[in-house]
Amino acid sequence: MLIDGKNYQSIWLDDLDQSIVRVIDQQKLPFFFETRELRSVEDIYSAIKDMTIRGAPSIGAAGAFGMYLSTFEINIHTNIRDHISNAARYLISCRPTAVNLSWAVGHVKEKMLQEPDVNNLSGIARQAALDICEKEKENCRQIGNHGLEIIKKISEAKNGQPVNILTHCNAGWLASIDYGTATAPVYFAHDNGIPLHVWVDETRPLNQGARLTAWELGKHGVPYTLIPDNTGGHLMQKGLVDIVFVGSDRTTSGGDVANKIGTYLKALAAFDNNIPFYALQPSSSIDFAISDGLMEIVVEERDPEEVAYISGLSEGKIVSVRICPEDAPAANYGFDITPARLITGLITEKGICRATEDDIKNMFSDKYK
Amino acid sequence: MLIDGKNYQSIWLDDLDQSIVRVIDQQKLPFFFETRELRSVEDIYSAIKDMTIRGAPSIGAAGAFGMYLSTFEINIHTNIRDHISNAARYLISCRPTAVNLSWAVGHVKEKMLQEPDVNNLSGIARQAALDICEKEKENCRQIGNHGLEIIKKISEAKNGQPVNILTHCNAGWLASIDYGTATAPVYFAHDNGIPLHVWVDETRPLNQGARLTAWELGKHGVPYTLIPDNTGGHLMQKGLVDIVFVGSDRTTSGGDVANKIGTYLKALAAFDNNIPFYALQPSSSIDFAISDGLMEIVVEERDPEEVAYISGLSEGKIVSVRICPEDAPAANYGFDITPARLITGLITEKGICRATEDDIKNMFSDKYK
Repeated sequence: MLIDGKNYQSIWLDDLDQSIVRVIDQQKLPFFFETRELRSVEDIYSAIKDMTIRGAPSIGAAGAFGMYLSTFEINIHTNIRDHISNAARYLISCRPTAVNLSWAVGHVKEKMLQEPDVNNLSGIARQAALDICEKEKENCRQIGNHGLEIIKKISEAKNGQPVNILTHCNAGWLASIDYGTATAPVYFAHDNGIPLHVWVDETRPLNQGARLTAWELGKHGVPYTLIPDNTGGHLMQKGLVDIVFVGSDRTTSGGDVANKIGTYLKALAAFDNNIPFYALQPSSSIDFAISDGLMEIVVEERDPEEVAYISGLSEGKIVSVRICPEDAPAANYGFDITPARLITGLITEKGICRATEDDIKNMFSDKYK
Repeated sequence: MLIDGKNYQSIWLDDLDQSIVRVIDQQKLPFFFETRELRSVEDIYSAIKDMTIRGAPSIGAAGAFGMYLSTFEINIHTNIRDHISNAARYLISCRPTAVNLSWAVGHVKEKMLQEPDVNNLSGIARQAALDICEKEKENCRQIGNHGLEIIKKISEAKNGQPVNILTHCNAGWLASIDYGTATAPVYFAHDNGIPLHVWVDETRPLNQGARLTAWELGKHGVPYTLIPDNTGGHLMQKGLVDIVFVGSDRTTSGGDVANKIGTYLKALAAFDNNIPFYALQPSSSIDFAISDGLMEIVVEERDPEEVAYISGLSEGKIVSVRICPEDAPAANYGFDITPARLITGLITEKGICRATEDDIKNMFSDKYK
């Protein structure tokens, strides 16, 4: 997507030096726009861990590029199979909830393990990672097209009055290499001249909504309003939300959705007010091996300091301030599980289906062979 | 309640100079403990408006003291009735949602209007304000006693395992002159040796939970954990919450509760997980004149800057940081309405009742004469 007239992805291979992976530093946004060079598996691991790069598809791509970078650490003493497996295990361990990471890393790993000639490993891994990026971008385009149809219908029903869309966290292009998942239909609808407005949940504790979604939408010229996470229920009660679009870090075969902590609360409010609630994700975010999200998904616990401190801009510098008593114990769960029963539908690159075992099986029958 | 061994209220009349009202500056907590002198109606108005003092009963008391301070502005040219009415109207206009403010101001105003001798006005108003304080404290004690019985039962059912209580915003003693409303049973249970633990919602945008509830509980030695507002649903799904206690800024005769924005989302999650959800308030917070909260309560909109900026401590100073793009539009609704159907019960100084028109009428039959 465009930033001040120049086209960017969230992650890409350096044009001149193909041993460098570049990412937009999402920790510094919206205050400073900077890119970071990643040159090793360790660099990739750190960038995912500290959320320089985040969002399920972007993390998957980063993991895939991590496997590629691992090939530069091979020498004549390396046990190739061990090296590949260790790199994969290390990268997957970085963030446990998102299924894309293990899927993408596993995919590149398999390609590498199938290659008999060690001299080809780097090229194989590079191509596999680039293919994943292209595939994810195409998936986002398709998700955008399917979601666009829903927005069009609401717009028609409202006689062209702005469609109010609420979103949580950042399932935007920063999270998804390009276009975004939850935001792809928003960008496409806006570009098609459909009047709309986005309510952006700030998304505590790391404020991906306030920092990233607001920045993305603003750069693209989409009208939006930033709100505290507490606000969505009130807006829905007052008829100020027409539809909710969220991403997914992991969707089960039963239609449960693991997404940024707080998503479940918005789903409850949407359900209570008869407002359609959609989870938008590529099929790479669907974990066909599990059905019951509440029982089977491990929810990541992160550093409590992320709750006790907030970063923001003060006098031109990013400053971290403590918002509670010095010794306050805090808990920091990264995700919650929205049960399928609260979800109107899933939007994937293949189309729109209900969040039920049967409908998901129907749409992805190839995965069940 | 005790602060470092000394007993405090959230608001009181200066011992030596009875023309000075003193309050704990809640804007500076938990970073600095300071008190502020209020000497005029204008001072009271500002202190309520900028949330130096906040919380329904504390605001009510502040309004009552405001009426008292207005008597120092009377001179021989003053039209007494106009002066009293204008002071009342001005004070009530300060924050529209809390019913205590208009109730307390109106109560003192009536007492003043009934007094024929202008020389007695100051004493009459002072006594009326002090009476309101004593009454609110006694109400909190009674609320605490009634709520304590509920905690006791849960503790017994859990065989003495810690009772996990979730609370939103600050309905603590800072909000209620002393003891608190939602926190009164917590303090009483803790003092009775019942093991418990409080999940404290940080309560964006002004972080009354992170700043005030965490500070209060910590000073009193009650175990607690600070959480982002997004977290409660997940905790409830995982069986980590036994009961929810919230305050109320305004409860209708039908049992709807206007409380800090985000309360409705927690009520939905509690309902979805069969967890008891109680609103705790003195009868002064019940507006017997209205029934339907969603239709009849005006929800206050506050300055969007409170969303775009967060205050916290950095290098020993309170610093305000911007958390979003510079030009980000933001919305700041102060309250939401939790419909009675989601509320297990109301705890008032008179006892516990269901949140229904009939039960409320039964408990407060004197108000319906």
